[in-house]
Amino acid sequence: MTDITKCIKDLKQRFEDKVSTSASVLNQHGHDESWHLCAPPDAVLFAATSDDVVQCAKICSRYKVPIIPFGTGSSMEGNVNALFGGISIDTSQMNTILAINAADMDCEVEAGVTREQLNQYLRDQGLFFPVDPGANASLGGMAATRASGTTTVKYGSMRENVIGLEVVLADGTLINTGGRARKSSSGYDLTRLFVGSEGTLGIVTKLLLRLHPVPEMILAMSAHFPTIEAAVELTCEIMQAGLPVARVELLDELAIKAINNYSKTEFPLAPTLLFEFHGNSATVSEVADMVQELCDEYGANAVSRATSQEDRKRIWNARHNLAFAERTLRPGTETFVTDVAVPVSCLPAAISAAKADLKKIDLIAPLSGHVGDGNFHFVLLINREDPHEIELAEKFHDRLINNALRLGGTVSGEHGIGMGKIDHFNTEHGEAISVMRRIKHSLDPDGLLNPGKLFT
Amino acid sequence: MTDITKCIKDLKQRFEDKVSTSASVLNQHGHDESWHLCAPPDAVLFAATSDDVVQCAKICSRYKVPIIPFGTGSSMEGNVNALFGGISIDTSQMNTILAINAADMDCEVEAGVTREQLNQYLRDQGLFFPVDPGANASLGGMAATRASGTTTVKYGSMRENVIGLEVVLADGTLINTGGRARKSSSGYDLTRLFVGSEGTLGIVTKLLLRLHPVPEMILAMSAHFPTIEAAVELTCEIMQAGLPVARVELLDELAIKAINNYSKTEFPLAPTLLFEFHGNSATVSEVADMVQELCDEYGANAVSRATSQEDRKRIWNARHNLAFAERTLRPGTETFVTDVAVPVSCLPAAISAAKADLKKIDLIAPLSGHVGDGNFHFVLLINREDPHEIELAEKFHDRLINNALRLGGTVSGEHGIGMGKIDHFNTEHGEAISVMRRIKHSLDPDGLLNPGKLFT
Repeated sequence: MTDITKCIKDLKQRFEDKVSTSASVLNQHGHDESWHLCAPPDAVLFAATSDDVVQCAKICSRYKVPIIPFGTGSSMEGNVNALFGGISIDTSQMNTILAINAADMDCEVEAGVTREQLNQYLRDQGLFFPVDPGANASLGGMAATRASGTTTVKYGSMRENVIGLEVVLADGTLINTGGRARKSSSGYDLTRLFVGSEGTLGIVTKLLLRLHPVPEMILAMSAHFPTIEAAVELTCEIMQAGLPVARVELLDELAIKAINNYSKTEFPLAPTLLFEFHGNSATVSEVADMVQELCDEYGANAVSRATSQEDRKRIWNARHNLAFAERTLRPGTETFVTDVAVPVSCLPAAISAAKADLKKIDLIAPLSGHVGDGNFHFVLLINREDPHEIELAEKFHDRLINNALRLGGTVSGEHGIGMGKIDHFNTEHGEAISVMRRIKHSLDPDGLLNPGKLFT
Repeated sequence: MTDITKCIKDLKQRFEDKVSTSASVLNQHGHDESWHLCAPPDAVLFAATSDDVVQCAKICSRYKVPIIPFGTGSSMEGNVNALFGGISIDTSQMNTILAINAADMDCEVEAGVTREQLNQYLRDQGLFFPVDPGANASLGGMAATRASGTTTVKYGSMRENVIGLEVVLADGTLINTGGRARKSSSGYDLTRLFVGSEGTLGIVTKLLLRLHPVPEMILAMSAHFPTIEAAVELTCEIMQAGLPVARVELLDELAIKAINNYSKTEFPLAPTLLFEFHGNSATVSEVADMVQELCDEYGANAVSRATSQEDRKRIWNARHNLAFAERTLRPGTETFVTDVAVPVSCLPAAISAAKADLKKIDLIAPLSGHVGDGNFHFVLLINREDPHEIELAEKFHDRLINNALRLGGTVSGEHGIGMGKIDHFNTEHGEAISVMRRIKHSLDPDGLLNPGKLFT
């Protein structure tokens, strides 16, 4: 028997029908939302408890079998693909909300709890969890990729909103990385080390999260601009003025067209900013008025406001379904998603250069962006069967990234590195990669945790 | 020749009079503001550039000689004491402000720039750096200890305000840990790993810092309460209501007495809260009114406001000089400083228990606290020559810490672990200590960087 066969035998003996080797389950766990080809694991464990994860890690480490943590599979860089086979640990059944501490505005959840589940649960408590990547991702997965999204401009990303983790290491050791105090100077910040480590240092099993009070008033606003430059420059001005926006999302005409197709909305076909303002009613009105005045200065037309939950929901649902909507622009293609972030003042330069560059290649590529954070996505619709298109997309991506790095930016604003951006990751960090490698080796000497991600 | 002699010879050859072995310089670099006994290094290098630090690390690593980074010596847990001799690298001459990016509200500085120097420099730009531990510490040192202080309740600590670092590793490798984008999902969060690592993983040589706009209006307010419980419970209520305070500082009668002694202020001798509110004038007035109303409900008297810079400065200077003021309560003694932080809702329990405990021992111990963060300091004034007093203080400290941990808190809110809290650090983190040790070993296999701190 090979090691993997022995490993699966031991797992089945211990976990019985929590272990699946059915082809459909394996295929479902071998890919995420990205264009990267499915790489199925050899088996999937549907873990129900932290101890299940501990025992699974011990068995895998005995046979030197890879372990790939799996939340909902909504990642964007092939982060869950089982490139070297092994055991995918699916945490979706670890979905208990363990504690809500309303007085201190924090909570403890199992890793498989999704952000929508948590917010549904919090509905009557005047609190919410703000990080919103669009997909209804698991909170463990969101921690692993350091997810952010539409509200990060106000509330921060998972970096700011995870205050502690329970993590299972490669050898099955279970650790806790943080307590409930608002701050601490007690040793290395393991919480932030594991946040964003993409399952390469350990498997997140529980999270302590920061919650926020539901604002007294929420106002959404859409504004449509004559040019993309106007929309981007306005964003810079708003951010530099320190105006407290809770969301500021850029969509170009193509993205709007896709959204109108898919969500049956009727946004004017123009470069668009979608805002949201959170606060008490006086502040929200004041800020919205100031932003609207600025929109007017930048030539916006059809600025419209939405305060009812229903109207706001329609706008943000349309935005959240963008990933699906974009595919309607060229049915049957795959989406090659870029994800750079630059200092906000460099957004006009970064976006203009990319737009000009795109004109030279014949690919459809709608633009969206969490522009308050300097993060934007060109989504290239490519025919995977056409090597020329793939090459065009990859070369465009290279130029986009090199420009972002030149401007002081990063290759990944929110999707992580996964299997898709390893070369660019090396370019970005230089000698610091050796530090990451040494840390990886110190915690996972056999390279069992999500191999082929971050490092080759 | 011994290794240390050879090392100093090589350093002198390379750096000439940047290297000092004079007794007074060595003694000055062998201690901080804590009660821990001076442990002088064998030599001090006054580094002028990052490359000086690189070359020094290479020479020290060749002879396996300890390296202790030194900023201004204002740390509180013996963090700079050279317990095993070696070379203290003094960064005070690395004091260039390299870049201010006003548009993106960030800046780059050398590690020896102090927070007051930076704020002085920013005075005319409408920006400031908020982290305020009281002492005019170097920003490199503040990063190393993950400093926080009076404004953290609004602006966060060094954890939130350092966005990137240049760091020299034990072997002289120089790395950069972050760029200027507001967020990134590009690999392990080395910035937050080095922030708070107390010089045990590398020597900080440059910092990228987040800046904040100077608020349109700043209002300070003092309120005096019939009991310490009233002041603490009010703090909880303010925090739970989400009222935007920029500072909320607790002082008990003893601390007030010390401040009045030292700073010639005339605060009523009562448990006191010092507030500050930042924002536009409408918001600030509104919030101050709400807080004042709550103060009245909790029986406060003599609530007074200060808006002029001069009046505010008098209040905060008095608060900042507390460390010196406390010594006037019992001249000739040393200060044994405690530093736990607990979830804010647990503050009343934590402080009441400690106050009751203190009544049983015959030591003077004024109380101050950054209570908006759940962080408070009892400062025990002890006669170092009296082993009984030291034992009383240490046992009180043990009980205080055990209670804080039981409440979900941390042994160190802001001072770090240094040489002073290693046992408690182990108690707090359990198995996670092994992860910190593995990381330490992976980056500093010979244990040259600040040995005897965090780990024994």
